[in-house]
Amino acid sequence: MKPVSVGICGLGTVGSGTFNILKRNAEKISGRIGREIVVTQVGARRDNPTCDLTGVDVTRDIFDVAKNPAVDVVVELIGGYDVAKELVLTAIEHGKHVVTANKALIAVHGNEIFAAAEKKGVTVAYEAAVAGGIPIIKAIREGLAANDIDHLSGIINGTGNFILTEMSQKGRDFEDVLKEAQELGYAEADPTFDVEGIDAAHKLTILASIAFGVPLQFEKAYTEGISKVTPQDVKFADELGYRIKHLGIAKLTEAGVELRVHPTLIHESQLIAKVDGVMNAVAVHGDGVGDTMYYGPGAGSEPTASAVIADLVDLARTFDADNNARPAHLGFRADSINNIGVLPVEDVETSYYLRLQVQDHTGVMAKLTQILSERDISIEAMIQKEAKGGNSNATVVLLTHEVKEQIMNEAIAAIEALEYVSGSVTRIRAEHSE
Amino acid sequence: MKPVSVGICGLGTVGSGTFNILKRNAEKISGRIGREIVVTQVGARRDNPTCDLTGVDVTRDIFDVAKNPAVDVVVELIGGYDVAKELVLTAIEHGKHVVTANKALIAVHGNEIFAAAEKKGVTVAYEAAVAGGIPIIKAIREGLAANDIDHLSGIINGTGNFILTEMSQKGRDFEDVLKEAQELGYAEADPTFDVEGIDAAHKLTILASIAFGVPLQFEKAYTEGISKVTPQDVKFADELGYRIKHLGIAKLTEAGVELRVHPTLIHESQLIAKVDGVMNAVAVHGDGVGDTMYYGPGAGSEPTASAVIADLVDLARTFDADNNARPAHLGFRADSINNIGVLPVEDVETSYYLRLQVQDHTGVMAKLTQILSERDISIEAMIQKEAKGGNSNATVVLLTHEVKEQIMNEAIAAIEALEYVSGSVTRIRAEHSE
Repeated sequence: MKPVSVGICGLGTVGSGTFNILKRNAEKISGRIGREIVVTQVGARRDNPTCDLTGVDVTRDIFDVAKNPAVDVVVELIGGYDVAKELVLTAIEHGKHVVTANKALIAVHGNEIFAAAEKKGVTVAYEAAVAGGIPIIKAIREGLAANDIDHLSGIINGTGNFILTEMSQKGRDFEDVLKEAQELGYAEADPTFDVEGIDAAHKLTILASIAFGVPLQFEKAYTEGISKVTPQDVKFADELGYRIKHLGIAKLTEAGVELRVHPTLIHESQLIAKVDGVMNAVAVHGDGVGDTMYYGPGAGSEPTASAVIADLVDLARTFDADNNARPAHLGFRADSINNIGVLPVEDVETSYYLRLQVQDHTGVMAKLTQILSERDISIEAMIQKEAKGGNSNATVVLLTHEVKEQIMNEAIAAIEALEYVSGSVTRIRAEHSE
Repeated sequence: MKPVSVGICGLGTVGSGTFNILKRNAEKISGRIGREIVVTQVGARRDNPTCDLTGVDVTRDIFDVAKNPAVDVVVELIGGYDVAKELVLTAIEHGKHVVTANKALIAVHGNEIFAAAEKKGVTVAYEAAVAGGIPIIKAIREGLAANDIDHLSGIINGTGNFILTEMSQKGRDFEDVLKEAQELGYAEADPTFDVEGIDAAHKLTILASIAFGVPLQFEKAYTEGISKVTPQDVKFADELGYRIKHLGIAKLTEAGVELRVHPTLIHESQLIAKVDGVMNAVAVHGDGVGDTMYYGPGAGSEPTASAVIADLVDLARTFDADNNARPAHLGFRADSINNIGVLPVEDVETSYYLRLQVQDHTGVMAKLTQILSERDISIEAMIQKEAKGGNSNATVVLLTHEVKEQIMNEAIAAIEALEYVSGSVTRIRAEHSE
């Protein structure tokens, strides 16, 4: 069979990994599909010393690649929103399939991009956009296609998980570990996207859509970062038998879709609680299969390139077939996407970890528990610790059963208004083990 | 598009699950692929009370299904070797695609079956044959297609993992837990296939072939059961920081393929060491992606049916395309399969846990360590425990670095011949954490 001709746009971390693996494992790859995948053109602002570009047409204008009649598939690895979107739409316009690792682009502009691709009869593949080398898009769209998937949760930002793991295992504080992560190259100079959960929310938005068959709704995702998690909370969680992870959680409920990224207590008996360091993992629950989990490196040159090439292999295998032979962009075909909205976080029901300072005064605990019981919030576990050094303050930690966030907001306001409660209540959401 | 017509042969645990999920999630499934999957005929010795067969053509002769011109895909769920093989070959002969959950059939007769299917231009799909609901065949053949995969290991028998987990967490002994597993329905009345590792070896054979691109070579797999693992060994392993799991291990080395199922010490820091109970997990290492792991239920009606239906969905999606649009049966196309042989276990290099009884006599430890050092076997950890009650026996436990099995056999023979060593040496292989 005729080789599939690929044009790579962007020759940075992922682009160079893609180029190099395609070369190194060319025989293995063509042995799997019976046709070669050949990089015909590379569009990049500069060459990459790790890539031997001998014999490859190199251009400084990525749009040359998108318009090149000799290119069958355009691989978009430039990142960002605007130019990437224009590049992808240009490639589609020219009848080319697209492979991208750009989670921000798909989460924000995916609905528009997929509509354009379907109109033109081409495919935009994005396995590399979520959880790096883990074939999670394929697992959900194809491997679990029998299932009514009702929830999933993921550790889908390696930087955040590295920071929380260090805090948990070594008692270090956030700022200290962040600095190390930046020195190690795990975190960007501006770590906002990673530690504030925006990157995770991009990925979660994509996972929720393909799992539930709903449109991409990134703008409605609830996002809370890990910068306020303290070593003290990590330690109390540990005492309760929980780990704190920066979890992306998506659920399909009768009221709507939950789509939220925030620090989360997970019981230590759950496998995902044991996923440490920069590794990623996504747990998916389907009505037929039950609980499954997918684990691997969520970033890096060759892990991400592995996912880019998996998409190229799928495209090469089905190259002579039409779009129907490939999975629908969002897992479900456009006419089967259900326009179910995302719940405001106030309507989400979850469990809570609460930490507060109380003055050691008769009756304060009675008032505290009364506030909760009046709102039907039941307590699963409680820790009370007297302050050292003999002052009259105590730290109270509570783990509650599930309650609607709005009710919890009211309860917290009432607790903070109590005479003998000092300062504000720290609140971290918790996921109960099944 | 025209619906895909399915004939199900066998309406037991997995057959009924398949039938029921196809019905329950019909809308979700057709929403994903844009065409319906309809069960046209069921061939089963008896009806199943959980299945409403109204409107379905029911036959008592499964070969009716294999020959039925109205059936596009035959789902083989009768199990066993001979009749299943005849059924599958008959279906192929009649130009039908086949989906099977039969690991024994694929591991033993797969080479022949796939050759027949390829000659006829049809596909035999078998996601459900390995690790139940976990889409591990898809992950390896497609999701990791960019990679040179060099090793994988799996907990691929839920019964065995349940037994070892109970032994580890509760200090129970093998026979006691096996009896409970049988009462719970996890283990068959004749548990040989599960606890002696034959079932795991079937699955490992399949995984190794699709990962490495080698023929199915079940008859050359090394298989050792868990019936001789004692609570004492579980406890000593724990002291050393290890768990004992019944692991299937496949490696591609320069000398050949390692293919072995045996009790294995795994360091507790490895995620796969934390996979407990009846759950399955497969860890796969590729040169690009690094370490990945896939986790979920390895058996049961609906988990296995989830995998059967994933295959049906893939076939339905590519139904109008030819075999080239679907992954090659063994991951690599027939002309790219490398006929690499399986290493005899004597040639395998691994680490070892050794446990022996020594009489408390000057010089015995010196002789023991001399036997090891003469053979370049270095010791990673050692435990020596005096027997209680004042007799002069001590238990010695050693954890060694990697050495060829043949050398270890010689060392063990020499140790057992020592004057002050009582009885035989217990040996369990160990996998080092990376």
